[in-house]
Amino acid sequence: MTQTSNTTQFSDTELSQRREFDRSRPRERDASKDLIGSDRVEGTDVYATDGEKIGHIKKLMIGKRSGRVEYAVMSFGGFLGIGEDHHPLPWEALDYDESVGGYVVNIDKDRLREAPRYSETDEPTYDQEFGQRIYAYYGVLY
Amino acid sequence: MTQTSNTTQFSDTELSQRREFDRSRPRERDASKDLIGSDRVEGTDVYATDGEKIGHIKKLMIGKRSGRVEYAVMSFGGFLGIGEDHHPLPWEALDYDESVGGYVVNIDKDRLREAPRYSETDEPTYDQEFGQRIYAYYGVLY
Repeated sequence: MTQTSNTTQFSDTELSQRREFDRSRPRERDASKDLIGSDRVEGTDVYATDGEKIGHIKKLMIGKRSGRVEYAVMSFGGFLGIGEDHHPLPWEALDYDESVGGYVVNIDKDRLREAPRYSETDEPTYDQEFGQRIYAYYGVLY
Repeated sequence: MTQTSNTTQFSDTELSQRREFDRSRPRERDASKDLIGSDRVEGTDVYATDGEKIGHIKKLMIGKRSGRVEYAVMSFGGFLGIGEDHHPLPWEALDYDESVGGYVVNIDKDRLREAPRYSETDEPTYDQEFGQRIYAYYGVLY
């Protein structure tokens, strides 16, 4: 699995250095055409890399002070038989694909099946350890 | 009006310097308890400083790449007789007040009445000039 090797090829030291570099850069504002309404994100379908629909975006988790979207929470539509379970995805893991009209997550279904998930009533603790684990799972720098 | 003097006491040069400084700082991630779901933001009431309810949050405008919430779009509930008009507010202008169970915007109703607004079908161009104007109106650094 390409995804797996992506997440394991950096040592902790390397990841830490990349993280420092990433955080030292200012976060630029996006230009006009690159803003999107939360109402348009919510409900949008999510696809695996093979083009199969996996679920849809249920909500976004936002830093109250920073105003930064930390996670897009994907809800399964019963596709894997797990009802209303929620998968927190890093915002950076979502690529909008106009040809399918939804977000494509660069991860295969087998790996997604094992991804961290929570029942609708069991909100996870969104602390730093959690963030690093989730982001690493999807091969995105936290 | 305190709000007015806040927005006019800095020269363009000073604002530019403060902006550079602000952008050069990394945007920290919020700790666990400081994350909030977009579904909990949307629909939350917005109050003026005198405690009067002004409207509610309709949606958030988010940078597609940055994942940064640029605006919270407030919808009037007919309070000023202007129906479904939308007011884009800087995220930083919203302070959640537990005692009222909603967001308080540090601006008085008269000034809010004159704030930039748009009909539901007339989406503004969220470019840099627009951002600077909106943020300045609410006394927040863009």
